Amino acid sequence: MNKPRSERGFFFNREACMRNIKIIIEYDGTDFVGWQRQAEGRTVQEEIESVLQNVTEELITVVGAGRTDAGVHARGQVANFKTQSSIAASDLHRALNGLLPDDIVVHSAEEVDEKFSARYSARERHYRYFISRAASAIQRRFCWQLFYPLNLDLMNEAGRIILKTKDYQSFCKANSGVDNYLCNIQQAEWIQSSPSEMIFSVRANRYLHGMVRAIVGTIVDVGREFITLQDFEQIIEARDRRKAGMAAPPQGLFLEEVLF
Amino acid sequence: MNKPRSERGFFFNREACMRNIKIIIEYDGTDFVGWQRQAEGRTVQEEIESVLQNVTEELITVVGAGRTDAGVHARGQVANFKTQSSIAASDLHRALNGLLPDDIVVHSAEEVDEKFSARYSARERHYRYFISRAASAIQRRFCWQLFYPLNLDLMNEAGRIILKTKDYQSFCKANSGVDNYLCNIQQAEWIQSSPSEMIFSVRANRYLHGMVRAIVGTIVDVGREFITLQDFEQIIEARDRRKAGMAAPPQGLFLEEVLF
Repeated sequence: MNKPRSERGFFFNREACMRNIKIIIEYDGTDFVGWQRQAEGRTVQEEIESVLQNVTEELITVVGAGRTDAGVHARGQVANFKTQSSIAASDLHRALNGLLPDDIVVHSAEEVDEKFSARYSARERHYRYFISRAASAIQRRFCWQLFYPLNLDLMNEAGRIILKTKDYQSFCKANSGVDNYLCNIQQAEWIQSSPSEMIFSVRANRYLHGMVRAIVGTIVDVGREFITLQDFEQIIEARDRRKAGMAAPPQGLFLEEVLF
Repeated sequence: MNKPRSERGFFFNREACMRNIKIIIEYDGTDFVGWQRQAEGRTVQEEIESVLQNVTEELITVVGAGRTDAGVHARGQVANFKTQSSIAASDLHRALNGLLPDDIVVHSAEEVDEKFSARYSARERHYRYFISRAASAIQRRFCWQLFYPLNLDLMNEAGRIILKTKDYQSFCKANSGVDNYLCNIQQAEWIQSSPSEMIFSVRANRYLHGMVRAIVGTIVDVGREFITLQDFEQIIEARDRRKAGMAAPPQGLFLEEVLF
């Protein structure tokens, strides 16, 4: 729309008094169709926006650092939103925790520089994936229960191959709309955290759609000696998602931390 | 009913070929109204009996070592049942895990002596209660989230008082139908398991109705310095549930292990 300069001026003035708020969020992803607002289904983004709109009486858009899929959890999701409201960040924090459903908890809220973007300013995202070899009713929502033997050494060999890879197209869902498949992975490591639990820890500047779960699913194929390390290297070289293994199920995946 | 001796004889013969099966069970208590079968509501006992009845085509009664309340979890509940079926214990184990809903997992099934009773042969039951001082969406079903400071030393002093107590009537729900309130407690101890988590560990031969949660609720009143250790001793001496603190909420409580 073409508006007279005076109105645009007014608009810019409004922009100038916008505050930028950064929040750190934990959620149990079980009952969400994911982070990102969608036409149908309950999303974390929508729950938070809805509370903020009630509190500020503004139309608020919350931008997250990681667009976690349905069923994926977060202990350290970071998001930011712009508001003209003068409500203190600490009061917004309290209001969010008071009004959000109990599967979302906001750990902090602080006013940050207007240039800060949870999505674009993030330089590293840390995800962990939990595999349990013991059937557990209590842990079932928070791990992948796998009952066959897994060779940890082979899985860490595959992790080292992942670390030195540059193009991750083989682990990216088709039609994801990105123009390149380059990621800079800093860590891709398995530990045996207890006799029955293994944890995969991965740190990268960016992730492609479905990437962590595709990597975990394919490394598990290595760990159960269903494919070899040579097969694993060929899968990466193929740059074709269909060559890689099945995606590991969402409930084992946690967005742990985002660094800026 | 008076039956001719011959029929009673037949009955005893049936008894003689009964097998006794011991199972160890884990469950997420969130969506149950408790262990014990009730007129209304979903119970762990009924879910297990229903599967066993389908598998054995017999009317099966499962007896548990601990009658956990609504919302209370178990990692090591023990139960037993009698069956005339010749299905191997390992096959019953597999059938149970195949047919039970995913908030119940059977960890083992074995044939035991006919005299074994999960309820009456148990000599020690180990419960743990989890308190978290950090709000957590992921842990919310499995701990009591308490945000005020708690004095661990005072709570362990209260634990020592609990340990040397003999009569626990002050921690027993009214009209619980028991003829005495004597329990033999072997352990009643708090640990700081992480900066934000405290765990109460209690081992006893028996528990009264609502006892662990009433003890935890009252010790928390000591820990927050709402009542003194002297008050705590007077509560015990009063032998009156109304003098003690509120019951701690069920989701922090786990039946960990039963010893025979």
